[in-house]
Amino acid sequence: MPIRVTVWNEFRHEKAEGPKFDLVRSHYPDGIHEAIASHLRKSADFQVGTAWLDQPEHGLTDEVLARTDVLTWWAHGHHAAVGDAIVSRVCQRVLDGMGLIVLHSGHASKPFTRLMGTSGKLKWREVGEREILWVTKPGHPILAGIHDHFVLPHEEMYGEFFDVPEPQETLLISSFTGGEVFRSGMTWQRGAGKIFYLRPGHETYPTYKDANILKIIENAVKWAAPVTGGTVLPGFPNPKIGWVDEK
Amino acid sequence: MPIRVTVWNEFRHEKAEGPKFDLVRSHYPDGIHEAIASHLRKSADFQVGTAWLDQPEHGLTDEVLARTDVLTWWAHGHHAAVGDAIVSRVCQRVLDGMGLIVLHSGHASKPFTRLMGTSGKLKWREVGEREILWVTKPGHPILAGIHDHFVLPHEEMYGEFFDVPEPQETLLISSFTGGEVFRSGMTWQRGAGKIFYLRPGHETYPTYKDANILKIIENAVKWAAPVTGGTVLPGFPNPKIGWVDEK
Amino acid sequence: MPIRVTVWNEFRHEKAEGPKFDLVRSHYPDGIHEAIASHLRKSADFQVGTAWLDQPEHGLTDEVLARTDVLTWWAHGHHAAVGDAIVSRVCQRVLDGMGLIVLHSGHASKPFTRLMGTSGKLKWREVGEREILWVTKPGHPILAGIHDHFVLPHEEMYGEFFDVPEPQETLLISSFTGGEVFRSGMTWQRGAGKIFYLRPGHETYPTYKDANILKIIENAVKWAAPVTGGTVLPGFPNPKIGWVDEK
Amino acid sequence: MPIRVTVWNEFRHEKAEGPKFDLVRSHYPDGIHEAIASHLRKSADFQVGTAWLDQPEHGLTDEVLARTDVLTWWAHGHHAAVGDAIVSRVCQRVLDGMGLIVLHSGHASKPFTRLMGTSGKLKWREVGEREILWVTKPGHPILAGIHDHFVLPHEEMYGEFFDVPEPQETLLISSFTGGEVFRSGMTWQRGAGKIFYLRPGHETYPTYKDANILKIIENAVKWAAPVTGGTVLPGFPNPKIGWVDEK
Repeated sequence: MPIRVTVWNEFRHEKAEGPKFDLVRSHYPDGIHEAIASHLRKSADFQVGTAWLDQPEHGLTDEVLARTDVLTWWAHGHHAAVGDAIVSRVCQRVLDGMGLIVLHSGHASKPFTRLMGTSGKLKWREVGEREILWVTKPGHPILAGIHDHFVLPHEEMYGEFFDVPEPQETLLISSFTGGEVFRSGMTWQRGAGKIFYLRPGHETYPTYKDANILKIIENAVKWAAPVTGGTVLPGFPNPKIGWVDEK
Repeated sequence: MPIRVTVWNEFRHEKAEGPKFDLVRSHYPDGIHEAIASHLRKSADFQVGTAWLDQPEHGLTDEVLARTDVLTWWAHGHHAAVGDAIVSRVCQRVLDGMGLIVLHSGHASKPFTRLMGTSGKLKWREVGEREILWVTKPGHPILAGIHDHFVLPHEEMYGEFFDVPEPQETLLISSFTGGEVFRSGMTWQRGAGKIFYLRPGHETYPTYKDANILKIIENAVKWAAPVTGGTVLPGFPNPKIGWVDEK
Repeated sequence: MPIRVTVWNEFRHEKAEGPKFDLVRSHYPDGIHEAIASHLRKSADFQVGTAWLDQPEHGLTDEVLARTDVLTWWAHGHHAAVGDAIVSRVCQRVLDGMGLIVLHSGHASKPFTRLMGTSGKLKWREVGEREILWVTKPGHPILAGIHDHFVLPHEEMYGEFFDVPEPQETLLISSFTGGEVFRSGMTWQRGAGKIFYLRPGHETYPTYKDANILKIIENAVKWAAPVTGGTVLPGFPNPKIGWVDEK
Repeated sequence: MPIRVTVWNEFRHEKAEGPKFDLVRSHYPDGIHEAIASHLRKSADFQVGTAWLDQPEHGLTDEVLARTDVLTWWAHGHHAAVGDAIVSRVCQRVLDGMGLIVLHSGHASKPFTRLMGTSGKLKWREVGEREILWVTKPGHPILAGIHDHFVLPHEEMYGEFFDVPEPQETLLISSFTGGEVFRSGMTWQRGAGKIFYLRPGHETYPTYKDANILKIIENAVKWAAPVTGGTVLPGFPNPKIGWVDEK
């Protein structure tokens, strides 16, 4: 049974006026979500949908979330425009087992910061410098097929301190031309849901056409998918004493 | 310099009408907060204040929090009555370095669940069964002076699954007469702030008179206190490339 | 491609003289390894071999290990009889990516304690008391299909403190009739290799016929299997400065 | 009561013949251990001893270890010369609660790799490039008084992947001129003993005269010291069922 992925995007940069946005469009004429979704659609392992900010309920209705195994979240400038009720819905689905892949500036999004309990803040610089991503957890499923490092020639810089909780696993650490470092791939779990943060993906660079980045996203979707026949929880009951002997 | 502790309590059970509340009062005539605060006051290591729900701003004004190194939080029935603005203020102080000791039913409080990003839900039963607490991390400062286990003759039961993020450290695990288990002492960090959850403390039992429990709270306050001359963060700036060579 | 599993067993209890060993034989006439291996063989997902202590090189030649994706290790009384060279070989294969499932008294085995760096010691009692295993990480692949708890009517007791490093994940915690608790399912990683410890499995009880235990072992083998096309490491070289610009 | 520190050093580079070793001597005329020890001796918080490889039992007799709260370990070229019996003695003391601060090339030392269960291998390059160390866990006691980053103008490079277990906490990450990164400050616990690894400290640079490095070592010694009146463990007994009711 394929993994049902919903690729979410703000999808505003790609439609805005001005030279910066022309550049975004040149990389992603159909939107960043389509760059990711079209890659995933190549594999029969995935059943892929997309959704974006300006759709009703941001495209994340109860029905859409109910049939989403893994949600990927790209956002960079319009975090405040996401309605709190939709954020609560997304977070509840994560606790219930939906995987969440947070991309780039999703670090400051409402769903991510609410699930982390921290600000998600970081240092940053946008001059198109070189980023080298180094593997710090070989053997992890999210790193399948990745060499010990790879290079993105031009990216926005994100620098430590990155205000997130100590991760369960640190998978990737970046260095930038300017000397900063960043924990660029990290995992957490909230309730039954797995969460992966992946740093690169500034809208003015063709990062979502990079083979390593696409491979990592593809791996992460598989890793974050809920387990078939998951754990069977009875909710949070108030059992009588002696229950164990009554069985 | 002493550690400045603020002991927070709902302080409603102790003032309510009815046989259950008479029992609470019999254990804690001055309130649960005074049982904890009076223990801490015996040591010159601490400078102790108290605060409760029905004070203005729940006793947690900006001024009070600014002079609080560690906040302890006991609550059992009135989580919803805590105002969101005060919750935000408390959480921000934790990110900035204030320690937080969450006691018993504080598992469902707004500050704790917001910092965790999970529901904090659990199984429960109130029949006064026996709880044995087992040490799972000898050598941890919070366990100084504690034997490999200790027994509370009567307590409310809390049972797994406890919906919190994987802890940084599991210090104590309880078993109950009825067969349930619970991770009763766990640590996390959010921003620069240390967080410790300690399970026991139902209001109808004299748990906050137990020497082991008081010792653990005392240890935890020391552990959670912000470090003198802490880490010096420049905020989250946008540094120029080349900064490292300009120094 | 099936996962290649080698099920290792001391296989001495099953062949020894005396009433205790008759009991072991009554549960496991072909050895504990066959109880586990025959379950795994029912699925096309696995290609299953077995090995035991009294074979040449304990059945763990270079050739066998080279074609083993996941090794399961049951041992209870003859840890010292395992040769150090074989132990080194097993540990090296784990660092290189082989999964390791350590069962019951494997807690004191040479491969496990060497990979942990701790003694693996614990409390214990053998009176056949009831064990309840509680899920503490719903949604984890190793717990697929497992309810929030399950009961083994008779088992040896293992009690905390269990001298292992803080695990990456605590999946299961047991309570016993006598009041002890134990972290019965835990994960770690060493090098590229995943490690899972599962507590139950005393030789005088039919634990490896229990559906939950067999399901957990099956899940764990899948979880611990090396990733196809894993991470590509260049070893630990001494690269020249400027390498990144020469590409 | 002061913390009793033993500063261990190979103390061979400082006494060897040749231009490289003249350089080492110019920085550390009395040995690297004295650079560290003389800093710690300035504070009444510490009672400082030293020991080195070519002393009988490498200076680490039972008596010395019994009165050592925290051991610091610097080594770069003579790991194999450390006797296995002494290594076992050191590791056992760590499990019993002694803190261990592993410096620079101690990553490949016998005590560290035995406690980790991994190879401790890494990439490396010795051209004296610039290292920037970034704080990733503000608020940690080991980082008291440290800014968000600091620079060492010339150091040996160590690069990821660094083959150690997932740390409990990542405190510092380095970037180097050549583009590599390294987790330069990490913590683990083994038994009751706390372990801290600190990367910098190549013998041909005056790293142990750097104020930040000395401050971090000083902080780490305090953090790693066993807790007064620690946890009281009964060993690993075989308790009778019913013990809890007999009390």
